[in-house]
Amino acid sequence: MVLHDGERIDSIGFGNLKLIQNPSEFCYGVDAVLLADFAKLKDGSRAIDLGTGTGIIPLILSHKTGAHEIKGVEIQEKSWERATRNAKLNGLEDRIHFILGDVKNFYKESDLEAFDAVLANPPYTKGEGGIKSCNAARMIARHESSATLGDFLKTASLLLKPRGEFFMIHRPTRLVEIFCLCREYQMEPKEVKLVMPYPGEEPNLILIRCVKGGGIELRFHHPLYIYDGKGGYTQELLNIYERKG
Amino acid sequence: MVLHDGERIDSIGFGNLKLIQNPSEFCYGVDAVLLADFAKLKDGSRAIDLGTGTGIIPLILSHKTGAHEIKGVEIQEKSWERATRNAKLNGLEDRIHFILGDVKNFYKESDLEAFDAVLANPPYTKGEGGIKSCNAARMIARHESSATLGDFLKTASLLLKPRGEFFMIHRPTRLVEIFCLCREYQMEPKEVKLVMPYPGEEPNLILIRCVKGGGIELRFHHPLYIYDGKGGYTQELLNIYERKG
Repeated sequence: MVLHDGERIDSIGFGNLKLIQNPSEFCYGVDAVLLADFAKLKDGSRAIDLGTGTGIIPLILSHKTGAHEIKGVEIQEKSWERATRNAKLNGLEDRIHFILGDVKNFYKESDLEAFDAVLANPPYTKGEGGIKSCNAARMIARHESSATLGDFLKTASLLLKPRGEFFMIHRPTRLVEIFCLCREYQMEPKEVKLVMPYPGEEPNLILIRCVKGGGIELRFHHPLYIYDGKGGYTQELLNIYERKG
Repeated sequence: MVLHDGERIDSIGFGNLKLIQNPSEFCYGVDAVLLADFAKLKDGSRAIDLGTGTGIIPLILSHKTGAHEIKGVEIQEKSWERATRNAKLNGLEDRIHFILGDVKNFYKESDLEAFDAVLANPPYTKGEGGIKSCNAARMIARHESSATLGDFLKTASLLLKPRGEFFMIHRPTRLVEIFCLCREYQMEPKEVKLVMPYPGEEPNLILIRCVKGGGIELRFHHPLYIYDGKGGYTQELLNIYERKG
């Protein structure tokens, strides 16, 4: 396996997965792991991850679920190429495929209503707001410089079969927009799970599950706490990472 | 003070407030107290409570806030009449006024854009769903048999001044509808607070603050826990009730 300048191979667990990353550009975070764990994909299903970066979510899904085919779409050529090498490095090139393209328009006629599940860990910050990253790779990953939240949700809805599931992680600060856009694109929010650094704190992430054409009723799960307040991670987080306390 | 059949006078705290209730019809719950505490009304403001029952929310607001004038609207004549006696019983008839009317259409021309704050603890269950109460007073208080959630929000928006605040308590299961309707009526949700029986459990109530014409950004407060898991109430709940642990 060829490594490019600045790249390294990390052993990330999840059944001994290896991941090529370039730490000076972008490393995956807890968000991707939480989303891949939250999405309980059905055995034999077809799934697609929008804005996949170096492919962390499809890789973890291949270990955690019985999904038959997992795709990932990435607009940045370097990240897409690295994702492709990551699939090969783990011997998953038959099950995982990466597409170089824009979330807004990469899909073909045959992709429409073809997926059981769509996942997204989109940029959290609006294009016009927030402190911009000088690094182009980080900037596209974190800001809505290319596709907006609405673009992600519109594409997700087009790709999903009727009753298909959409899974997303995002900031609680944007939940009103998220809910209204989900409704606009006929994906009814059915489950949410707040993520808080410590018990009793304000949440900084929210996991959302929608069903295309689903009925109206939202379930709030118990929140996930990252730290136990005694200097360690909570057992729930360790379980998600498949590590012992 | 004349008491009718089945009525009793309860001392409910909050600076020695007294409340006439008929326990066989409807008694106020923790929801009303949480909402009256969550609504931090500005000194000298004008507020109105939609679907006020026997007036518990205006009464607590008169103690907890410096609101100058507090109104309450109630469709059930018995409850409205009891609310009026409750204001008198507490010597608050100059500051609190109750209107007999339907949330959908009670207001006059002079009420439009006339309030700094609107509060609502509406029925939680949709008109067509849920187990109906045989008791008519309870049924109207708990089911959308008269005004719907949309009616409450539409009226709230009409009554609020620009930048006025809307405070509501409701079920988290209906949060998608709530957010979309708030947007429809130009009241942007700005703050929410989940209420859970115990830490780590799923929430069963949510407090919401909207601002008419407000900007987009939602803040999740830390959740409120009712019980401490050791057989008592949490200190936060006791503080809301202004009681010692």
